[in-house]
Amino acid sequence: MTELGVDVLLLSVGADLPYLTGYEAMPLERLTMLVLPRDGDATLVVPRLEAPRVQERPEVFSLLAWDETDDPVGLVAKLVGSAGVAAIGDTTWARFLVDLVALLPSTEWRKGSEVTGPIRARKDAAEIVALRRASAAADRVATQLQSGEIPLVGRTEHEVSLDLGRRLVAEGHAKVNFAIVAAGENAASPHHEPGARVIRAGEVVLCDFGGTMPDGYCSDITRCVWTGGDPSSEMRDLYTVLQDAQAQAVDAAVVGTPCEDVDGVARRLITEGGYGPQFIHRTGHGIGLEAHEDPYLVGGNCERLAPGHAFSIEPGIYLAGRTGARIEDIVVATEAGPESLNQVTHDLVVVDA
Amino acid sequence: MTELGVDVLLLSVGADLPYLTGYEAMPLERLTMLVLPRDGDATLVVPRLEAPRVQERPEVFSLLAWDETDDPVGLVAKLVGSAGVAAIGDTTWARFLVDLVALLPSTEWRKGSEVTGPIRARKDAAEIVALRRASAAADRVATQLQSGEIPLVGRTEHEVSLDLGRRLVAEGHAKVNFAIVAAGENAASPHHEPGARVIRAGEVVLCDFGGTMPDGYCSDITRCVWTGGDPSSEMRDLYTVLQDAQAQAVDAAVVGTPCEDVDGVARRLITEGGYGPQFIHRTGHGIGLEAHEDPYLVGGNCERLAPGHAFSIEPGIYLAGRTGARIEDIVVATEAGPESLNQVTHDLVVVDA
Repeated sequence: MTELGVDVLLLSVGADLPYLTGYEAMPLERLTMLVLPRDGDATLVVPRLEAPRVQERPEVFSLLAWDETDDPVGLVAKLVGSAGVAAIGDTTWARFLVDLVALLPSTEWRKGSEVTGPIRARKDAAEIVALRRASAAADRVATQLQSGEIPLVGRTEHEVSLDLGRRLVAEGHAKVNFAIVAAGENAASPHHEPGARVIRAGEVVLCDFGGTMPDGYCSDITRCVWTGGDPSSEMRDLYTVLQDAQAQAVDAAVVGTPCEDVDGVARRLITEGGYGPQFIHRTGHGIGLEAHEDPYLVGGNCERLAPGHAFSIEPGIYLAGRTGARIEDIVVATEAGPESLNQVTHDLVVVDA
Repeated sequence: MTELGVDVLLLSVGADLPYLTGYEAMPLERLTMLVLPRDGDATLVVPRLEAPRVQERPEVFSLLAWDETDDPVGLVAKLVGSAGVAAIGDTTWARFLVDLVALLPSTEWRKGSEVTGPIRARKDAAEIVALRRASAAADRVATQLQSGEIPLVGRTEHEVSLDLGRRLVAEGHAKVNFAIVAAGENAASPHHEPGARVIRAGEVVLCDFGGTMPDGYCSDITRCVWTGGDPSSEMRDLYTVLQDAQAQAVDAAVVGTPCEDVDGVARRLITEGGYGPQFIHRTGHGIGLEAHEDPYLVGGNCERLAPGHAFSIEPGIYLAGRTGARIEDIVVATEAGPESLNQVTHDLVVVDA
């Protein structure tokens, strides 16, 4: 905070608060907010009815409970006082910032992630173990997908999505964050919403799924399968380019490399393969307590990879209205080189499911 | 917006956007934002990779897709232009408002709910049907609880919470929003996090659960049961006061009554019963596409109930470290009087489960 010129950090819903205090704010209209001055002690402002949920940690924060007819934003503003620069947690609800801006007109506002992002991005050994465990659980579901154990043909995308979710929980996740299932032409939509489309034989099924483990750490994996018979020549060609781009981007993720250069490797190979305009998203995002967090592997991000950075590498190629594919692993940058936490094959497995 | 002096409305994650457009923003770091000027046409700013998800509705909005290396907040700021007063959706992530405040230093910021809250609070006939269906689904789970069909004694709160969640889904919910299970002394914590505490015979179990139906409308119900034998005299006394307060607050929820007066009825009866300081939260919250929304039944809210207002009535009494109870129904204000959407008994049912 001193380096960044931030006088006070305000944290509410999201992962920053549990990361620093062990307490997670309920995502409701009653304000929970940690007020952490650069100089001085932290205060956790919580609704009175949620105070019994808080495990008190006097060495970390003191508790300030507010009653239903109190003005919690006014309490926070009083604690912020004359601080010139305040950073507020990225996922805090705007309604609270609107009120704070009105109450503190001379305060300059910054994003909380300027403070917390770089800290959270570098995982320690215990966090890497946790991410490895999450990826292994997702891998077990991916193995079930690739082995044909999960019925596909004749079911709707939505049914398969629910099935993947149940399997994520069965393999140890506490919560499913997403389970994209996109069949045939729907695979051209990177964030497709699984729907009533029935999966047919002889087409691609793109599955991108992940969840949160009981310890709070996330998984995220994408694999594509082909539902019987030989993949189309269009898909074979596209997939060969994609698989090579994904593998070489992983190899490029060595400590010291700028994030945008990893993106650049995947983009160059896909462009050389003839699919440049069809790779319509960045190569990856950080992962930890959130499914998406710093660092982002995207053009314009000059930040260099450091030991403990954990992120996805997930190039994709999308042929609008026809088909698409994506391959995604979670990777950790280590002094010994990039370590891929997902181990299941990258091949376009043909399943008879 | 004209009445409120709002020049432009900005909506991102949360229920306002699907309410107005049918499209729900993904809760991710890539900005989705509807820019709706008071005078002029609306634009939906979306990440390029999510554009295929959007069902285009040219009569409602035009689509503006941004690429990964674009600055989406800059695009929004350009669309806002010189608007003097901007209202931004309550649950929008603060990171976007921080950037907008910096880009638009002379704009005055207001909460989006000033515009959308009063509109969404008054449910039309189809919405009331949807809420009735959601409450009926929650009632079926409450009936399973009260009939003793759900095992309690010997299981942990956490296990019962998961069980309630599975039953909410089995009865038609698309998503579980919460399933509080608080046994014995934990019932004194209104928002207790269900944990490893094993439920014993001869104690209270407070269950507060709800979810979202496939059409987006929410349920929310609280019932308490006693796990065998006669309830303690302390609980019997407390519960008699609570049950009367809840019923009379429902009766008071007639069109034209200020919201705070409904809270006042429950509070007066609980205070007269000797438990005033132990009723540590408001009497209720609105419900619809969100589990908590306008109108709030709380001291200080002078807004009068109108036909179509839908809300919880849920007084509680909490004896710190010992026990507690809460009774909650969803109620709709109609010209013919308050209609309770939950039908299962309010009694403290003794279950042998």
